[in-house]
Amino acid sequence: MFVNRMPRFEPLSEEALATIEAGVDRLAAEVGVQFDHPRALELFAAAGQSVEDGVVRFDPGFLRGQAALAPAEFRLRARNPERDVVVGGDHMVFGPAQGPPFVRIGGERREGTFADLEALLKLTQLTDALDTPGRNILEPNDVPLDVRHLVRGLAAIRLTDRVWAGEPSSEAAADDCLELAAIVFGGRDAIAEAPVLFANCNVNSPLHFDVRMLEGILTYAAAGQAVLVTPFLLMGAMAPVSVPAALVQQSVEALAGIALVQLVRPGTPCVLGSFLSATDMKSGSPAFGGPESALGLYASGQIARRLGLPWRSGGGTLTASPAVDYQAGYEAMNTLQAAFLAGANVCWQSAGWLEGGLVTSFEKFAADCELLDLLLAQFTNVVVDEDSLAFGAHVEVGHGGHFFGTEHTLERFRDCFWRPTVATTENHERWTRNGSLDQAARASRRWQELLERYEPPPLDAAIEEAAVEYVERRAAELGDPLVVRP
Amino acid sequence: MFVNRMPRFEPLSEEALATIEAGVDRLAAEVGVQFDHPRALELFAAAGQSVEDGVVRFDPGFLRGQAALAPAEFRLRARNPERDVVVGGDHMVFGPAQGPPFVRIGGERREGTFADLEALLKLTQLTDALDTPGRNILEPNDVPLDVRHLVRGLAAIRLTDRVWAGEPSSEAAADDCLELAAIVFGGRDAIAEAPVLFANCNVNSPLHFDVRMLEGILTYAAAGQAVLVTPFLLMGAMAPVSVPAALVQQSVEALAGIALVQLVRPGTPCVLGSFLSATDMKSGSPAFGGPESALGLYASGQIARRLGLPWRSGGGTLTASPAVDYQAGYEAMNTLQAAFLAGANVCWQSAGWLEGGLVTSFEKFAADCELLDLLLAQFTNVVVDEDSLAFGAHVEVGHGGHFFGTEHTLERFRDCFWRPTVATTENHERWTRNGSLDQAARASRRWQELLERYEPPPLDAAIEEAAVEYVERRAAELGDPLVVRP
Repeated sequence: MFVNRMPRFEPLSEEALATIEAGVDRLAAEVGVQFDHPRALELFAAAGQSVEDGVVRFDPGFLRGQAALAPAEFRLRARNPERDVVVGGDHMVFGPAQGPPFVRIGGERREGTFADLEALLKLTQLTDALDTPGRNILEPNDVPLDVRHLVRGLAAIRLTDRVWAGEPSSEAAADDCLELAAIVFGGRDAIAEAPVLFANCNVNSPLHFDVRMLEGILTYAAAGQAVLVTPFLLMGAMAPVSVPAALVQQSVEALAGIALVQLVRPGTPCVLGSFLSATDMKSGSPAFGGPESALGLYASGQIARRLGLPWRSGGGTLTASPAVDYQAGYEAMNTLQAAFLAGANVCWQSAGWLEGGLVTSFEKFAADCELLDLLLAQFTNVVVDEDSLAFGAHVEVGHGGHFFGTEHTLERFRDCFWRPTVATTENHERWTRNGSLDQAARASRRWQELLERYEPPPLDAAIEEAAVEYVERRAAELGDPLVVRP
Repeated sequence: MFVNRMPRFEPLSEEALATIEAGVDRLAAEVGVQFDHPRALELFAAAGQSVEDGVVRFDPGFLRGQAALAPAEFRLRARNPERDVVVGGDHMVFGPAQGPPFVRIGGERREGTFADLEALLKLTQLTDALDTPGRNILEPNDVPLDVRHLVRGLAAIRLTDRVWAGEPSSEAAADDCLELAAIVFGGRDAIAEAPVLFANCNVNSPLHFDVRMLEGILTYAAAGQAVLVTPFLLMGAMAPVSVPAALVQQSVEALAGIALVQLVRPGTPCVLGSFLSATDMKSGSPAFGGPESALGLYASGQIARRLGLPWRSGGGTLTASPAVDYQAGYEAMNTLQAAFLAGANVCWQSAGWLEGGLVTSFEKFAADCELLDLLLAQFTNVVVDEDSLAFGAHVEVGHGGHFFGTEHTLERFRDCFWRPTVATTENHERWTRNGSLDQAARASRRWQELLERYEPPPLDAAIEEAAVEYVERRAAELGDPLVVRP
């Protein structure tokens, strides 16, 4: 996996960070956070915090103290041990889009299906730069809602060999995901000891956790799996129209969730989540890839490092554009690059996100995997030593010549530069002769070619059988029987 | 003009910079630089450097010593004093594409004309973020080659009120440009005292200056105008296939030119130029916007600051793409953002560049002006103080509400966020109803709307008359009479 050894881009001064920290203490103490679950309120009360009408108000420093119990870095085991991920420090984990209800394939935009999800899981498995499929690259709308988590979990296990993410939105669904993970990794005790699942829990911003999310947080925390607490803040809607104010709110919300996890089971791995964007104040629509998001990312990285917590950027290849066009290209590059600059540890939404996250685009998925690959090369530090200066090549070429045929070039030409597969450097004549295909059209070919090469990763037959049995039994219990045998 | 108060992104260690500096000394001393002009050789010999068969070999440290004579920061006067530019320090100067022979307007790609150039000059004048039209936003192929510099200079004077750039490629052309500037700014002495022109001089890399460029350098240096010395290095072609080697070569070449300027007239403003990109080693075509270019930019900024010289990034909105598509979007963003991160002082090629610099695209011009505007907002430091935390808004909204109607939002909604003009946040239904226009199509509308608003900046009638007279007289002398009266 990728280790980002480049410097961090840190625009906030020590003084600015201290102002934000004081703001966090004040907001947490004076306005507090509403928790719609009696167990959460009990835990906070037992820890000496003020609980009144479902709202917890926190002593200054309490949230930071709880965060300090979480590990600064941890490992999640994958089905293929070479695909284990380390979360924290300079490590970066990448996953594709999460959650869009719609799919776009070429000119067609429609509701996503399970067949689409399977294809996207295969594309993820085929892409070296993607460490995890996450939970739901798109919504399989043709599968009944109450059994989707079972179908998705099983598909992630069968079609990829990577760390996947569990369903956070109810105790029963979370428990099913833990059971599937236990089947794959040798039981509940084994996964508690060495965790395997991500669980991304959102907040009902501002300053509110509903009962479903809390069920997820409590269940995964008790099981010792990695809990990401991610406030999704569109400034102007769920947060004030000010980046510093949103950063304070984001910190209070994420820390409140993390504090709860640490009360349930101290030392459980946690990730400070962020997802901060502006609202187009004319239309009310969310904006992505703009300056406020980038500033939010740079600052969130600084805040997470100050807290000593692994950090999930609201990064990825975000865009508000409805098309895989010029706007989508620069917004995606701006957001994903900000995650690199800011030193993010977990970057979901890094492939396929389109139309403000309503659509997973197959073309953009392929184009984004290349964009990600470009940034992986860009953020790999170059070695500067005597040999890299190629003095001999200069002696060979002298003045006004060219380097195409020098020994130095001939020895290195195959891998001296990063090479794109989808992007083109064709001149106009050749490009026209080849059909004048733009990046989206070339990316369309790319994912189709890639998919033809797919081979399922090896999976122990007994494990698969046990997982299938579990899923079929639970689906029947939930009233939506499924046939998931091959 | 824009002042970049954000931090610099500096991936090279002190040790790496010292290795590059030692490499510069060695390459300059042992291989040296070829100068095809007797005056240049005389000046270097008189300064005690080794001159043999047209090649100058430099004592270690000589080039740095000469560079130290150039000012770290200087001002260029514009026709409109509000449009003066400061070059150096944290200031950034932006200009559009320079030099493409072709134009693309919508689906049509053809040779550029003077009418196209006039339209692009008007669009530059209409764009607040662009500080200078530079010299040639595209080649006016319908104007005879020997008088193009006259036509271009006059058009820049008439259609914009900004600093422009002179022709570097012969003594006669350079002298004509200086005469035109002298007419506008009160004589040759006045412009020598307070400079007004950029002159960008390229190198015949590797390590070679031809006679035409040297004529330009010598002429502008004697006249005290700002000389940019820019090696244009495609690694694999004019430089070795290694970023550190190319950085050494770039430094030797740029410093050799700057040293010559300082020998002619110590204290003349100079800019260290860079333009470093990879070659696609399969096709031999240049690649733009990739990881090697970005690393080259980050490092070039560090090298220029170490030398105390203002720096021209080979930045701008570069792309190899033949279309205004997703690839063009992310390559442009990657290159221009690298210029901001690396602290560039002069950024030409920041609007309209397409197809590896062979084409100026009107659509991309409009889209790039917005991309530039986005980055200007992104690299403006946010104020973090008590007021920015909007505590009162949180007290007002509490838990689970929204911020659309709060006092804090209502007071700020007009200008709290950066607002695009070309990019869209429309939802799918509205976007489809409005014609499913992608960013290129919307940008096409934008430049046409913008152009309708153009009004020429005021120009003293006597100055215009004198400039017209000069241009018509010189064109007749050069054998290609022109009519340039309105």
